[in-house]
Amino acid sequence: MFDNTEHTNISKLGEFGLIDHISKSFEVKNPKVIKGIGDDAAVIDLGDSFMLVSTDMLTEGVHFDMVYTPLKHLGYKAVTVNLSDIYAMNGNPAYITVSIALSSKFTLEAVEEIYEGIKLACENYKVDLVGGDTVSSNLGMTISVTAVGYVDKKSVAYRSGAKEFDLICVSGDLGAAYLGLQLLEREKALFKENPNLQPDLQGYDYLLERQLKPEPRKDIVRLLHDNGVVPTSMIDISDGLSSELLHICKESNVGCDIYIEKIPVDHLTTTAAELFNIDGTTCALNGGEDYELLFTVKQSDFEIVKKLKGISIIGHITGDKMNARLINQANEATSITAFGWDAFKAN
Amino acid sequence: MFDNTEHTNISKLGEFGLIDHISKSFEVKNPKVIKGIGDDAAVIDLGDSFMLVSTDMLTEGVHFDMVYTPLKHLGYKAVTVNLSDIYAMNGNPAYITVSIALSSKFTLEAVEEIYEGIKLACENYKVDLVGGDTVSSNLGMTISVTAVGYVDKKSVAYRSGAKEFDLICVSGDLGAAYLGLQLLEREKALFKENPNLQPDLQGYDYLLERQLKPEPRKDIVRLLHDNGVVPTSMIDISDGLSSELLHICKESNVGCDIYIEKIPVDHLTTTAAELFNIDGTTCALNGGEDYELLFTVKQSDFEIVKKLKGISIIGHITGDKMNARLINQANEATSITAFGWDAFKAN
Repeated sequence: MFDNTEHTNISKLGEFGLIDHISKSFEVKNPKVIKGIGDDAAVIDLGDSFMLVSTDMLTEGVHFDMVYTPLKHLGYKAVTVNLSDIYAMNGNPAYITVSIALSSKFTLEAVEEIYEGIKLACENYKVDLVGGDTVSSNLGMTISVTAVGYVDKKSVAYRSGAKEFDLICVSGDLGAAYLGLQLLEREKALFKENPNLQPDLQGYDYLLERQLKPEPRKDIVRLLHDNGVVPTSMIDISDGLSSELLHICKESNVGCDIYIEKIPVDHLTTTAAELFNIDGTTCALNGGEDYELLFTVKQSDFEIVKKLKGISIIGHITGDKMNARLINQANEATSITAFGWDAFKAN
Repeated sequence: MFDNTEHTNISKLGEFGLIDHISKSFEVKNPKVIKGIGDDAAVIDLGDSFMLVSTDMLTEGVHFDMVYTPLKHLGYKAVTVNLSDIYAMNGNPAYITVSIALSSKFTLEAVEEIYEGIKLACENYKVDLVGGDTVSSNLGMTISVTAVGYVDKKSVAYRSGAKEFDLICVSGDLGAAYLGLQLLEREKALFKENPNLQPDLQGYDYLLERQLKPEPRKDIVRLLHDNGVVPTSMIDISDGLSSELLHICKESNVGCDIYIEKIPVDHLTTTAAELFNIDGTTCALNGGEDYELLFTVKQSDFEIVKKLKGISIIGHITGDKMNARLINQANEATSITAFGWDAFKAN
């Protein structure tokens, strides 16, 4: 009873293309909806403040691999990647709902481990689990989390607010989560060949933690707030720096110049990248899942921001619309194109 | 790397057991959370009013069968079953987020059909789609919807508010959705045997619609409001009347007497039930997915409620804690036990 006369493969559009395509046909009618689909979170006017709503879904075999993902970490990550979207609006999360579909291969003890991770994330980020759904699935696990938060009206940071000459900043360092994933995938492949092999992941704790247990940057939102800095635009780095820069350029209708040597990469990331014959900066640009914050601030905030620990100024916004450029040490520019992780193209 | 020393099968607890088990370990810390897990929706204090948050997840092969579920209907139902939870708090939904995981078998046109259904539900119930996630899955489809709504502080109806002597009411009629499902399953079985067979579903439109395209009772919430009636407790009937009655009795710490002949069953439901050699009332009690409202009102509202179209008074609350009784025409009582649909026991 279900027949498609037309057949367009979803992967042709990719995840962002699909979301763009769908959201075009939805017109928001409630005037309280300040921002619907298309930013890190929806923004709803509560009168005194804005409410933020964000949702993410993780599926087994696509977003996580049960072979090397501890269930507690999975629960933790499912929550924190959502909280990251609320922080990316310069807001603070308050509540989450969690829905999980599980196949019969999961035991009660397994479910408890997932919820232990969810609980730890709730405690660490001071959010309450207020609802959810736990259902059975025929195959594999799917986790869907919705986060609700708040932000002062004067502080909200959209993707669309970047202006020419604004400084471009990132928190922490980039590329580590991607290399953590590569290490885990390598061990999985070796384990398949020889199940008696002990995993050799010593010394890479930082990279593994970045992949398995990402911490969203609540501290950076706080730091900016305490120093009176309101970002002109902000996004969290889930799909790689390149991809997020292009989102900001597109939504703000601007361009950008990024200086390669300014991109923060941890020395462990560089070392591990060499192991895989990749360039550390490439991992930082395209790796994804770092859950750091990418944001822009006014030039006038330079003196304050340059002193803030954990924040790197990596470039500036230009008026050259949609031209995102990467500048190397020889002052040569190349165009940034997104090779970021894309849910549909990945398969 | 993932080993469970203990192995308890989830189906032992069932869906409600699992939710109870999990929610016990979560202590709500934010004083603004008036009600967390355990009702149709979470209740959050916004100062002037309460915000309601509800979430539901549907998985392919468990909650819907792609063989006979039109995609547009699926999108519609995924939204309306969530809105039903907001109405069940005597509130009104305002916003939804929708996350969908899809395997590569689904084309863009298929996704568009799902979103057409989502859009129609948004239009019919005046809610805005404000966010979501569209991701790939290795197998099958999962849809997760979160609904956000509002309710006046004086009007909110919990499962826990029923008091002795309150009248028990249901909207519409019950059992039809279950029989719609039986008809579809029968046709599927016949189709498997002989793919050239034309489906014989004539005359059963009402039952099929109840299953495939349920309409939550916004009108009943409105009707009660317009007549100045605030239910003392309320729940939507997603798992069958028996199951929902037990929820109200448990949460309100009361018992109930239900009169069989008062349970509203459509004549088409009765006819179809005979076809399957089941009793129509059994379908009403245990069938589920009717998305009608079950609620209690004070005795003093009797004169008003008895005149309201589309509402049946089916019994009353007793002080006999947790003793839910079904009274037949010979005035004989039997205990109500829930045979309702249970996500984990279903498999």
